[in-house]
Amino acid sequence: MGELIGSLAAVLTTCAFFPQVLKCVKTKSAEDLSAAWLLMMGFGIFLWVVYGLWIASFPILLSNIVIFVCLIVLMYYKFGMAR
Amino acid sequence: MGELIGSLAAVLTTCAFFPQVLKCVKTKSAEDLSAAWLLMMGFGIFLWVVYGLWIASFPILLSNIVIFVCLIVLMYYKFGMAR
Repeated sequence: MGELIGSLAAVLTTCAFFPQVLKCVKTKSAEDLSAAWLLMMGFGIFLWVVYGLWIASFPILLSNIVIFVCLIVLMYYKFGMAR
Repeated sequence: MGELIGSLAAVLTTCAFFPQVLKCVKTKSAEDLSAAWLLMMGFGIFLWVVYGLWIASFPILLSNIVIFVCLIVLMYYKFGMAR
């Protein structure tokens, strides 16, 4: 039961980034996203990927690689390369 | 070393939400935040809190309670109660 709750939590907090990416792609706007949030999340999630490799945890690795890719797309919109 | 990387990752992905909350409070705008992202994150992080209680992990509990409170503030701005 505990593992089920944890897995559902991980799936939700990972997949949550999909609609955010879609929204930014559609509106071509990331004005209200904080640059500091994006950079801290980017570095933090990168460290989660390293941690996932370190402890050889496939779920941590997969979930954080997916979030990292989403953050890269959001950064693309935030830092103006799309304009 | 692995635990240090994981702890730094947790601190970063938690504290990342502070500048995002500050930005929304200052600009009173959360237009570019995806409603689906907020709701899925809200429910997912809530489940992380339950998981933290379940496995009695203080770091998971603390980190996710902090993020949950930040998300509540972001929802307040997103869903128009501030206007």
